[in-house]
Amino acid sequence: MSSNQISREGDEIPAILTIAGSDPSGGAGIQADLKTFTSLKCYGASVITALTAQNTVVVEGVHAVPPSFVEQQLRCVTDDIPIKAIKTGMLFDKGITSSVANALRSTYATSSVPPLVCDPVCVSTSGHTLLQPDAVDTMIHELFPLATVITPNKSEAELLLSRMGHRQRIIGSLEEMITAAEQLLALGPKAILLKGGHLSVTMADLDRVCGQRPELSVEKYGMLGENMEVLLIAQGEMDPAVFELVVDVLQEANKPATLFLRPRLDSTSTHGTGCTLSAALACSLGRGEPVREAVKQAAVYTYQGIATAFPMGHGYGPLNHMHSIVHRSIPLPSLHNPHPFVRLLIEANASVWKQYVEHDFVKQLGRGTLPKECFLHFIKQDYIYLKYYSRAYGLVAAKSPDYDVIASAAEVMMHIVRESRLHKSFCELWGVSPEELEGGPESPACTAYGAYILDMGLQGDSSRLVMALAACLIGYGEVGLWLKREASKPDSWVKLEGNPYVRWIDDYAGEEYQDAVRKGIARIEAMAAADPPSPKRFEEWRLVWEKCTRLEKGFWDMGLSLS
Amino acid sequence: MSSNQISREGDEIPAILTIAGSDPSGGAGIQADLKTFTSLKCYGASVITALTAQNTVVVEGVHAVPPSFVEQQLRCVTDDIPIKAIKTGMLFDKGITSSVANALRSTYATSSVPPLVCDPVCVSTSGHTLLQPDAVDTMIHELFPLATVITPNKSEAELLLSRMGHRQRIIGSLEEMITAAEQLLALGPKAILLKGGHLSVTMADLDRVCGQRPELSVEKYGMLGENMEVLLIAQGEMDPAVFELVVDVLQEANKPATLFLRPRLDSTSTHGTGCTLSAALACSLGRGEPVREAVKQAAVYTYQGIATAFPMGHGYGPLNHMHSIVHRSIPLPSLHNPHPFVRLLIEANASVWKQYVEHDFVKQLGRGTLPKECFLHFIKQDYIYLKYYSRAYGLVAAKSPDYDVIASAAEVMMHIVRESRLHKSFCELWGVSPEELEGGPESPACTAYGAYILDMGLQGDSSRLVMALAACLIGYGEVGLWLKREASKPDSWVKLEGNPYVRWIDDYAGEEYQDAVRKGIARIEAMAAADPPSPKRFEEWRLVWEKCTRLEKGFWDMGLSLS
Repeated sequence: MSSNQISREGDEIPAILTIAGSDPSGGAGIQADLKTFTSLKCYGASVITALTAQNTVVVEGVHAVPPSFVEQQLRCVTDDIPIKAIKTGMLFDKGITSSVANALRSTYATSSVPPLVCDPVCVSTSGHTLLQPDAVDTMIHELFPLATVITPNKSEAELLLSRMGHRQRIIGSLEEMITAAEQLLALGPKAILLKGGHLSVTMADLDRVCGQRPELSVEKYGMLGENMEVLLIAQGEMDPAVFELVVDVLQEANKPATLFLRPRLDSTSTHGTGCTLSAALACSLGRGEPVREAVKQAAVYTYQGIATAFPMGHGYGPLNHMHSIVHRSIPLPSLHNPHPFVRLLIEANASVWKQYVEHDFVKQLGRGTLPKECFLHFIKQDYIYLKYYSRAYGLVAAKSPDYDVIASAAEVMMHIVRESRLHKSFCELWGVSPEELEGGPESPACTAYGAYILDMGLQGDSSRLVMALAACLIGYGEVGLWLKREASKPDSWVKLEGNPYVRWIDDYAGEEYQDAVRKGIARIEAMAAADPPSPKRFEEWRLVWEKCTRLEKGFWDMGLSLS
Repeated sequence: MSSNQISREGDEIPAILTIAGSDPSGGAGIQADLKTFTSLKCYGASVITALTAQNTVVVEGVHAVPPSFVEQQLRCVTDDIPIKAIKTGMLFDKGITSSVANALRSTYATSSVPPLVCDPVCVSTSGHTLLQPDAVDTMIHELFPLATVITPNKSEAELLLSRMGHRQRIIGSLEEMITAAEQLLALGPKAILLKGGHLSVTMADLDRVCGQRPELSVEKYGMLGENMEVLLIAQGEMDPAVFELVVDVLQEANKPATLFLRPRLDSTSTHGTGCTLSAALACSLGRGEPVREAVKQAAVYTYQGIATAFPMGHGYGPLNHMHSIVHRSIPLPSLHNPHPFVRLLIEANASVWKQYVEHDFVKQLGRGTLPKECFLHFIKQDYIYLKYYSRAYGLVAAKSPDYDVIASAAEVMMHIVRESRLHKSFCELWGVSPEELEGGPESPACTAYGAYILDMGLQGDSSRLVMALAACLIGYGEVGLWLKREASKPDSWVKLEGNPYVRWIDDYAGEEYQDAVRKGIARIEAMAAADPPSPKRFEEWRLVWEKCTRLEKGFWDMGLSLS
C-alpha cells in the first residue's frame, strides 16, 4: 500500500475556521461550529472572541477576550493551517470586530480572502445581547466588504437597514424580505442570505410573489414534492398547501433572488440554528461549491438537525449535529494496517481460525506422519469440493455486469479445472483410479461446505459470495506459510525431507498460490473500502467467514476420521 | 411513526463534558475533545479554562480565564445538562484548578460525581508550560480524589511522584512504570493510566516482566496477532518481535495491572494525543463501560487517529478524529419525514417517476377514453408479468433464512395468484378466452421488466430484489390515489361514472391495495434504517429503482402502442 492511498481521505478534507464565541453547553458558538465541521467531515479550527456562561435556558454572563489576543489566535491559525473557508459568529464588541477584520485584511490580499460567511450575531435566542451597539458599524464597514455571504435574520437585517439609513426598517412580508436582501447587498458582500425563521409565509404568499416576479427561482426542501400522494397518505401529513412555511432569501449580486422554502418545524430544539447554518455554509464553500448550492446543502443539514434533535437541557435545546454520520464498522486502512478487514475477521474469530490453520491434520502432514489413507480420502473429497468451488465462481460471474469480474471469474474457474486434473494424476500415482475418484461417495463435510457456499451465492449479493470463498483461499495460504516457516526453524517438528506430502506443502507455500492469496486479500479490502458496510452488514459478512472457517475445520476432521 | 422512534438515536447519546483549554488550530484542547465526542457520537459540552494562541508548531501565548468565570460556565452546564462523564485537561493555574474542584464538589455529592478522567496536562508537545507549578498540589489534593482515572505521561508521573515525596522519580523501564502506577494510586483516584509514549519497550522487556509477574494481563492492539502469516507477508511488515513497542499501564485499585501494548508509529501527527485519549476515555465511561474496556476502546480510537492522520500544519500535526465515521446516505427519519428513503428515491428520479405515474395511458384510463384493445393488451401482458412478479417473491423466500420473510413471501405469492385469476375472469368478460390469455405472445416490454427483476434477484441480495419490486407496488398505489384525488375535484377531467375501467381504479385506490403499499413502504424504510447503505450501495439501489420506473413507463407505452 502506497502512502498515497493512506492519505486519500485527507485530500478531501478542507480546513474550515470559525471566529466566534464559546457556548459551554455545546449547542451554539464554536462548539456548534466544530460539531458541524466534524459531522460534515471538515477539519475545524476555532478562534474564540468571547466566552459565555450559558445553557439552553439563559446567557448568564460574557467574558470578552482582549482584541489583541483574538488577533494573536487568528494569526497562529492562518500562519500554519491552509484555511479553505471562514465563518464569523459572535464578535461581541467594537475592538474584537475591528481586530478580526484587521487580521483578515493583513493576512490575505483582499482578493484572496477564503470564502467568508458572516453571521451578524446580535442577540441570542434567549434575548441576550451578543454584539454591543457600537460594534455594528465596525462590522458593516470593516468586515462585510470582505464577506462572501452575510446571513442576517429578520431583526438583524432590520438593524442593518436602519444603520444604512433606510426608512423602511420593518420586514413584515416576503416581498419586504426580497427588497431588504437587495438593499443589504450594498454592504459589499457577494451575497445576502436573509433568514426567514421569524416570519410566517403561506403557499399563497409564495404564489403571489412568484407570479409578480417570474425571474425568482424556488428551492424546496423538507416537504413532499409532486407525485408523492402515497407518502402523504402513509405519513398522515397535512396537505403542503396549508403548511406554515419558512422562506430564506438568497440574493447574489447581479442575479435574481432564490427562495429556499421549507415547512416550519414545531420544535424547541433551535438553540444554535444560525451558528450551525453559517458553519455548514462555510463547509460547502470550502469544498468549492457555488453559493447557491452551498446554501442549499447548509439549509438541508440545519433543517435535518432540528428535525432529528433529541432532548437536551431545559430550555431551547441543541440541534442534532450528528445526523449526517454513522459509525464505521471496518477501520480505515493505514500504513501499519493495510488490510484492516481481513485482520478484523481473523481477530474476531481467532480461536476457530487457529483450530482450522493449526489443525492436527496439518501438523501430521507437516511431520510426514499423516496416514496415506487419510490424505487420499482428503484429496478425493477435495476433488469433489473443487466442483462446488468452481461453480461458485460461475455464480460470481452470473452476478456481475462487469467484464473484468467475468474474466477474472473465468480465469479462476480454468485454474480450478487444471488443479482438479492435478488431483486426478496425483491420485493415479497413489493408485486411485479415475473411476474411483469420479464415482466415490461424497462425505457430509464436503456437501455441507460446498452447498453452503452455493447457498450464500443464492442468498446474498456478490460480496457475500466473496466472503464465502475467502476462508478457503486465505486459510490454505496461511497453512502453507506456517508449515514453511516452522520448517525453517532449527530442529523443527516439520520435516520436509522425505515427507510424502512435500509437494502439497510446496504448492500452497509457493509463489503462485501466495500471489493468488495476496490478490484475493487486496480484492476483499478494496470491496470493503469502496462500500463500507453498516454494522449489520459487517456482521453478516463476519458470520459467513466464521461459518466457512468452521466448515474448513470440519473438512480436516473428515480427513483424519475418514468419515 | 411514533415520537419514540424519532428520539431513539438520542437515547444512545450520552452528554460528555470537557473542562480544558482552547487550541485555536484545532488539534488539541477542547477542540480535540469536541471532535472526539462527535466522532464517537456523544453530545459534547465544554468549559474553557484558558485560551491559547497556538498552532502545530508553537504555543505563542495563554489567556487565563478568571476562576470565577470558569466556575460560572461549569455551573451553567451542570445545572442544565445531564452529564454522563467529565474529563479535565489544561487547568493552567491554582485558582482555576481550585474553582473546578470546588464546583464539582458542590454540584455533586462525592459519591455521585460522574466518571471523571483527569489528564494532568503540564507541558505541551512543543514544550510550553500548561500548568503553573503551584497548581500541582491543588490538583493533587482537591481534584484527584474525585477522579475515576488519572492519565499522566512519563514526565507528569515523575512530577507527581516527586510531589508525593517519593525518592524514585525517574521512570526508565517497564518495571518502573508498573511501580509508579501502583504508587500513584495513593493520590485517591480509582485508577491510574500511565501512558508510555515517551518510553521505548521491546517484546523482550514485556516477556521478562510478564514472566516475573504472571498476574499481569496484556491487551494488544494495532499489531498482527497469531496465525496471520498471510497478512505479514502481504503487507511486507517486520516481525512483531522486533517492533519498537509502546506500553500503557492501567492500575486499578485492588486489581493486577493491565498492560496495553501497541507498535510505535513513526508519525509527527501527535499534537493532542493526550487530549484525544482522555476525551475518548470519558466517552466510553459515559456509555457505562468498565474502566479496562473503556481504556481499550479509547486507546484503539487514539491509535487509529494517529495511524490515519492527514497532513495539516507545519509542526506536530493533529490526529484524524473522523476516522471512525462515514457519511449517512439516507437521512434519519423524523416526525415530518418518516419515509426518508422512498422520498429520496422519488426525488432523485422525479421526472421519470412523473412520466410513469402520470402516463397518458393512466390519463386516458381516468377519462374512460382508453381504447378497449389497449386496455386488453395491457391486461394480457400484465397477466404474464405477474408470473415473473410472483416468481420474484419465490426468490425472496429462497434468499431468506427467516420464517417471517418466507411466510410473507408465500402470502404475496398467493395474493398474486388470486389476482391472476381475477385477470382471467375479467378477460373472459371482455371476450378473451383462457387459451388466448395463456398462449398469447409476450411483448418485449413485459419480458424486459420481468426478466430484469429476476436478474436483480440473481445478481443481488434480498435488498436489491426488494428495490426491484418496489416501483411497481408503490407506483400503482400512487396512480390509484392520484386518479381518486383528481376525480374528487369539481369539474374533474377524471370521470368515474360510466367509466369502463372504474373497477381497475377502485382496486388500486382501495384500502386493501393501499394497505399493502403502506406496509411495503414501511418494510423498505425499516430495511434501510437497519442497514444504512454506503453511498455506493445506495447508488446501486437507486439505479434499480430508476430502471424499474423506466420499465414501468415502457409497460404503459406498450399498452398504448399495442406493441
